Amino acid sequence: MKHLTTPADFHAFIDSFDTLLADMDGCILLGNTLIPGVDSTLAYLRSLGKRIIFVTNNSSKSRAAYVAKLSGMGLHGVTEDEIFGSSYAAACYLDETQFPRDKYVYMLGQEGMQAELEAQGFKTCGGLEDKDIKFTGMDDLTSIQPDPKVGAVLCGFDGWINYTKLAKAHTYLQDPNVKFLATNSDSTYPVGSRTFPGSGSLYTPLVASTGRHPVVLGKPHSTMLKVILDKYHLNPERTCMVGDRLDTDILFGKNGGCKTLLVMTGVTKEHTLMSEDNKIRPDFVLQSLGDLAAIAK
Amino acid sequence: MKHLTTPADFHAFIDSFDTLLADMDGCILLGNTLIPGVDSTLAYLRSLGKRIIFVTNNSSKSRAAYVAKLSGMGLHGVTEDEIFGSSYAAACYLDETQFPRDKYVYMLGQEGMQAELEAQGFKTCGGLEDKDIKFTGMDDLTSIQPDPKVGAVLCGFDGWINYTKLAKAHTYLQDPNVKFLATNSDSTYPVGSRTFPGSGSLYTPLVASTGRHPVVLGKPHSTMLKVILDKYHLNPERTCMVGDRLDTDILFGKNGGCKTLLVMTGVTKEHTLMSEDNKIRPDFVLQSLGDLAAIAK
Repeated sequence: MKHLTTPADFHAFIDSFDTLLADMDGCILLGNTLIPGVDSTLAYLRSLGKRIIFVTNNSSKSRAAYVAKLSGMGLHGVTEDEIFGSSYAAACYLDETQFPRDKYVYMLGQEGMQAELEAQGFKTCGGLEDKDIKFTGMDDLTSIQPDPKVGAVLCGFDGWINYTKLAKAHTYLQDPNVKFLATNSDSTYPVGSRTFPGSGSLYTPLVASTGRHPVVLGKPHSTMLKVILDKYHLNPERTCMVGDRLDTDILFGKNGGCKTLLVMTGVTKEHTLMSEDNKIRPDFVLQSLGDLAAIAK
Repeated sequence: MKHLTTPADFHAFIDSFDTLLADMDGCILLGNTLIPGVDSTLAYLRSLGKRIIFVTNNSSKSRAAYVAKLSGMGLHGVTEDEIFGSSYAAACYLDETQFPRDKYVYMLGQEGMQAELEAQGFKTCGGLEDKDIKFTGMDDLTSIQPDPKVGAVLCGFDGWINYTKLAKAHTYLQDPNVKFLATNSDSTYPVGSRTFPGSGSLYTPLVASTGRHPVVLGKPHSTMLKVILDKYHLNPERTCMVGDRLDTDILFGKNGGCKTLLVMTGVTKEHTLMSEDNKIRPDFVLQSLGDLAAIAK
């Protein structure tokens, strides 16, 4: 573990990778604000021929929505191809595992998930379509029947979760051939200094009711990293994962054999990093990704 | 473990208890039909001066609703005082633990839960009141604030579960003084031969998001049994729990030091009962509670 301080440290670090996988919240931005200097750092790295890929567990925004969000914060020139969200990861995973295009993916999810699946040519059901279904009593639920057209249940963040969606997903998952996937296992969703139940909490009723456990795509699970490495033909040894969380970002990079850089602009504090209880050690530590260009140039 | 077969067996069994705690579904009734002979058995036991208390994990019906349901199936003369549902158990538990009457119980639950809490003089919020709340985006959720008036979150079956309810419950549970209660831990809800997610599945998002575990009242947890024994001043040694499920009904009785009778009219099959893997052995076994009067008389 090396704390980057001198220009020489910075240059050695920059020379060690060709691709930077960058976490978004706490690393590139804080809420709706870009972290100072990050735009210069990214421009500088691009000028050196480095590829940047933004990696987020957020399942509710499509890549197009992220490009618009970053642009609105003043980070221009990011393309959809540089954004890798967990719903897109799910679509890539379905593609890689040859999920049939004539089967449906039942979604506990929002617009972003649907957009990413449909962009890859997958059929979807549930999601927004079932958001306004009213509960009319248990006896009426028997109208929910197993459906051979459904080949997978995909769970992400779903602000419109309801009992009927859970009952449908539970019914489809009775068939062991129906895949059970989750975009990420984040148990909370941070909003400013507050938290609310996250995607990783919202699929737990199905784990309890079916006894099945989903394949989880997002950080720190290696499924998403494998998909990224395959899609962009990356060499993990020449790839660096940067983020603010030890147990998601840094573990994600280490699980995939990548280099790892921890930044201190998010949730991890120096005393946590240096604590004896912490078993997750990044290769490099930097105060802020925004410092990189200013000092290295 | 004794299989009751002869009239002498039956008389010895009947002499061994003063109070019968009877599970409902699979023991007294199947779906919406009374199990044949059960009405005669209950009348016979009452004529011998035995007290009957119906014990159910169902949290969505009030005691009044159960009296009406039983009467509609032809089992007349049952009083509310003889019904013990898990929402009523929650109300009794709050009373016993001196939960303040000026605090609110935030409910993930339906009419029956609200009726039972209010009948015992407790203030409620959530539940039906929040059933039609629309999700309007994460940023709007910050309008949900901790509320010092809320003293407990109670989770039962809630067909109108939604994200805002989960977000509110999550927020209230951030205060360690707010009690976290669940009516029961049944992970599935049987409807005929089908299952759907049960109360024990619906509170799991809050366990994941808060890291807290609820006090669970219903079978097989001993909380409800303690409440029953206290309320009716029962001697567990002279009390028998009858039901069709080993891992809820029979375990519940055994956990409380009661006698236990397994009936074979519900989910437990003879081969499961006799399997070496089964560690839960009832004191007595009977084909059907409906047989008792016919053979014993």
